[in-house]
Formats: sequence, C-alpha cells, structure tokens
Amino acid sequence: MLPTHNRQVQLASRPVGIPQADHFSIVSVPLPQLQPGELLVRNEFLSIDPAMRGWVNAVANYSEPVAIGAPMRSFACGTVVASRHPGYAEGDVVMGMLGWQEYAITDGRPIRRKVREADLPRSLSLGILGINGVTAYFALTAVGRPRPGDTVVVSTAAGAVGSAVGQIAKIAGCSTVGIAGGARKRQLCRDEFGYDFAVDYKAAGFEDALSAATPAGVDVYHDNTAGSISDAVIRRINRGARIVVCGTASVSSWDDWPSGPRVERHLLNKAARMQGFLIWDYEHRYEEAVARLADWVRDGRLRYREEILDGIEQAPGSIARLYRGENDGKLLVRLNDSR
Amino acid sequence: MLPTHNRQVQLASRPVGIPQADHFSIVSVPLPQLQPGELLVRNEFLSIDPAMRGWVNAVANYSEPVAIGAPMRSFACGTVVASRHPGYAEGDVVMGMLGWQEYAITDGRPIRRKVREADLPRSLSLGILGINGVTAYFALTAVGRPRPGDTVVVSTAAGAVGSAVGQIAKIAGCSTVGIAGGARKRQLCRDEFGYDFAVDYKAAGFEDALSAATPAGVDVYHDNTAGSISDAVIRRINRGARIVVCGTASVSSWDDWPSGPRVERHLLNKAARMQGFLIWDYEHRYEEAVARLADWVRDGRLRYREEILDGIEQAPGSIARLYRGENDGKLLVRLNDSR
Repeated sequence: MLPTHNRQVQLASRPVGIPQADHFSIVSVPLPQLQPGELLVRNEFLSIDPAMRGWVNAVANYSEPVAIGAPMRSFACGTVVASRHPGYAEGDVVMGMLGWQEYAITDGRPIRRKVREADLPRSLSLGILGINGVTAYFALTAVGRPRPGDTVVVSTAAGAVGSAVGQIAKIAGCSTVGIAGGARKRQLCRDEFGYDFAVDYKAAGFEDALSAATPAGVDVYHDNTAGSISDAVIRRINRGARIVVCGTASVSSWDDWPSGPRVERHLLNKAARMQGFLIWDYEHRYEEAVARLADWVRDGRLRYREEILDGIEQAPGSIARLYRGENDGKLLVRLNDSR
Repeated sequence: MLPTHNRQVQLASRPVGIPQADHFSIVSVPLPQLQPGELLVRNEFLSIDPAMRGWVNAVANYSEPVAIGAPMRSFACGTVVASRHPGYAEGDVVMGMLGWQEYAITDGRPIRRKVREADLPRSLSLGILGINGVTAYFALTAVGRPRPGDTVVVSTAAGAVGSAVGQIAKIAGCSTVGIAGGARKRQLCRDEFGYDFAVDYKAAGFEDALSAATPAGVDVYHDNTAGSISDAVIRRINRGARIVVCGTASVSSWDDWPSGPRVERHLLNKAARMQGFLIWDYEHRYEEAVARLADWVRDGRLRYREEILDGIEQAPGSIARLYRGENDGKLLVRLNDSR
C-alpha cells in the first residue's frame, strides 16, 4: 500500500545569514502517482550540512537558491518502495539530493549512488561514507596534496569533515593539528580523532598554542572557517604550502562582505597556493573515495561521530543548531516509521 | 690592464617602504686580485626590478635582506674580463646576481647563465630574455595555465613582466585584457602590446570598464598589484579561475599589514585557485623559456620596451622611479666605458 501524502520541510522565507527554524514550514502535500521512469524513495535519514546555508541565500553562490515554497534541498538516504525506473528495484538503498521530505519521487537524476555497504550503518552514506567523508578525502588528497612528514592543520577539526581530514592526513603519514572550539571538542580531537595536537581557538593564548603545535610551520591548511582562525594559520605557512578553502563557517554573513588581512604577500613570499574546493568537481571519482573510506572505517583507522535528531520536526532548526556548534560530528535527522 | 678600483652602490640605511636615492651611497672600493676559481666581470647593464624593494626590507621575505654597507643585490649583465674559473673565458657575456657595481668578482655561483643570443641586444638578457620574460613565461604557463579562448587579465599590463604576460597569453590563443594607469599606458597596451582590451584603473568608471572588457568573466588573472585593482578583478572570476600572485605593487607598505575584502568566499564559490609565484622554483627550466622568448622576439610576436638610464649615479633613485610608474617597460642602468 503506497502512501498518499508526503510531509515536506519547505522554505517559507529567505533568510539573511543563518537560516533559523522559522524560515521553514512543514507542509503535507498529496503524493502523485508514479510515472514511467520514476521511482519512489522513503527517506530514512536527512542530512544537515553547513553548505545548506548557502543554498537558501539569494546571493550568487555555486548553485541556484532554493525557491520559496520548495522542499529544502538536502542529501538524504532511504529505500526504494516502488519503481517504474529500469535502474532501480524495490528494496534498493539509495542516497542523493532527495530533500527534506518523507518521500521523494524522482527520475533518478538526483540520486548520487546506491548504498551497497550492507555491513555498515546506512546513515554513514550521508556522513563518513557520504558527502563529508568524500569531501575530506578529495579536499585533502587532490587539493591539499599532503606528503609524509608534512604538518597538516585542520579547522573545525572535530566536525564531520574536519575529523575525517585529520585522520586521513594521519594515514598519509603527516603530523596533524586540529583547531576546535572549547575544551570538550579539543579533547575529542585528541582522544577520538587522533590528532597529534589540538588547539582551542576560544581559549586565551590561541596564537601561542598554535605556534607551539606547529614548530615546523604549516604545509597544508584545511580551512572550514575563514576569519581570524585562518588569519593566524596563514601567518605560519611554509614555502609551497597549500590552503584548501572548504568552508567559511566563522563568517556569519557575506551580505556585508567582511575584510581581513590581505593574503597576497603570504602567498607570494611562500609561493603558496590557496584554492577553493567544491565536491562537484570530483563526482566522477566518488566510488573511489567511498571504497577507501569504508575500508578505513572497517579496520578502525577512521572514526566518526553522529548526532541523530529524531523526527522531521527537528529539521527546520537543525542548520542553526549546526552553526551554533552544539553537535558532535555529523548531524542527521532520522525519520521514524510511525508516519 | 685590470682595474684596481670598483665603484659600488651600497645600501646606506634600511628603508621603510620604498627605497629612495638617499638610502644608498656610491663608494669606491679597492678591487682585490683574482683567486683561483674566480672570475672578474665588467658590468654593462644593471637591472631595476620591483622585487628589489623587498630585498632591502628587514621583514621576513623570500630572501635574506641586503646588509647595510653591502652592494645592492641586483641582476646585471656584463663581459668576463679575466678568469681563473674553468667554466668561464675572457669575452664570455654573463648574466646573474652581480650587484649594483662596476665590477663583480665571483666564484660563478651568482651567475645565472651565459648570454648566447649574439644577434639580439645583450640588455635583453635582463628584461624580455631575463628575469622579466622568464617570470612572465612561467607565471602564465605553469601557474595561470591558460587554455585557448580563456580571458586573461593582467595588472601593470604595460610593465616589463605584464606586457610579456599579455603577449604570451595572446600567442596561447586567449582573449587579453590589460589594466594600466593613465591614458598613455592604456594606449601602449593596445598599440604596442596587442591587448584586446585595455582599462585605465586611474580613470573614473574603472569597474564598469573592466566589466565591459570581460563580458565572459575572468579565467586567469596575472596580478602584479594586489589592492583595489585585484579586488575588482576577483569579483569577476569564473569557475576554476587561476589567480597568479606575482607582485604587490599597489601596496606601499606591509609593515602595517593592509586589509581588504576576504577572498575565501570567491575562491570557494568558484573552486578557484590563488597562487604565489617565485621564479626560483623554475630555475632549472630557465633555458626553455629563454629559447622560446627569443624566437618570439625574432619573429616579432613578442615586443618589449626598455628605458635606459646612463651612469651608475642613476641607480640609487631608480627603484623609487620604478614605483612612481614613470618608466616605459624595463628599467635599466647602463654603465659607460669612460670609467
């Protein structure tokens, strides 16, 4: 018996800065019949990612903004419950841009991949084996290009992407330094994610602690923050350093464009490289990353944390929660079966 | 009959900002006898380069600062007048870091190369076939990596490096846009150096003119300036753009570190790359560049301008002159034979 209705989290108004719960509304809409070439997915986990803030802003970004009244764009994973698409069968587990909704009807194009790691929790397809892990893998290996012995510094080091970057850098033979906010996250960096050093950017003496943690300077900086954390790291870069710009979490708004110390002289004096990373450039190599990440998860070299919120009602406030930094590791919303 | 004395332009005091004539003094020193393994070069042309400003500043830079009382570090070219070095014979023409002085005694290590383009003026070994041309060649081809059809924007477009970048980009099949200061330099860009568009950054409506000149956005930006010119260009970069940081001429001092609009969001949204360029990384490929540049000079596809000041007395004020932007093309000091 197929469902007749679908609850969606729709964008209700356009936020300036970080989207809050009241920018969204939960609406029940009729679920149309499947057309030839379509499949119906019952979403099980919705993904909450920092980039989603950019997807709802009106300013030019790397993708078109979500329309008012449309379901919020997001990664999600779920099970195919009906299919008129030759490539998908009932029971397949799929992951892709399925949106903040209970059910997704799709022609298959938004689906990123079938989830085949049956021995691992399927929520991982949205985190360490999903956009977060794959981002960490390619941002570090393809843009950061670490060499054994390099010092790799990671900001938002205890987060879903950062924690994976630090661990992959360790696997690559690097010395790793994590920057995180607060004593608890600093502890997580060392005890859970194996950073050689962890620095609390909220503590007094941050710059001195960073210097002490990077006695040989910085060869790779994986930057999820921009802002004053990055300003401090860039002053310590080595000749030929690589700065991977992966996120700008510490900048609350680009509507009023912020200023900071100019980077040109650092880049010139050190012949260093600063480069933006977009996962879309690596879609064709997605399975390469997932296969390696899954092996490292299985043998215990790659650890992850998840924080799971229960029920679609948790989705609207989840992006703001992410930006408040309250979560540990990957933030997810689980849709329950009582619907 | 070998000379017994040598006039040097010595650094007399350490400048803050741009070195002026009175930071130097011209001193005659005895010329010691040649030791085994040494050669004596009579300098004919001294090179004046923007980077020399950095060589005399005390702040950490990409090379040790010139010591007070030492002859000013510089490129120069001249003829070997005596040699006890197995690799050099009397009459050889050489180019290298021979300093602002009439004669250089050296063990050969500061010599960059023997100048073998006998059909071309030897002053070119310091300009279009020297550090300027080689910088332009590698900054563009190895860091900027232009593809045919790309839009390449060049700042200080009429200068010794910039004018070569623009012309090499044209040879590489690109659309070229030169940014220069003043109507005369703008005219030079179009009439002499063949830019498709030239924009005067000192004129009113600079940003509108830049937009009109780059209707398809900017794929490669060769940046010799930093500052507000760069801020305007970076707002127009395309997906995957490359920004080559080659100089920071518009920043008068880094002692009081300047701020500017943060670049992280531009780099991230466009997955763009911003990279410092130091010629030292390409020393092993120097002859590759000189051979190609010389061919382009011979067949008229690569034009250059020189402004030659006569007499060592012109050297002390020459760096300030360069930064005032009064010169056309490569600035040189010619040492006369009356000494």
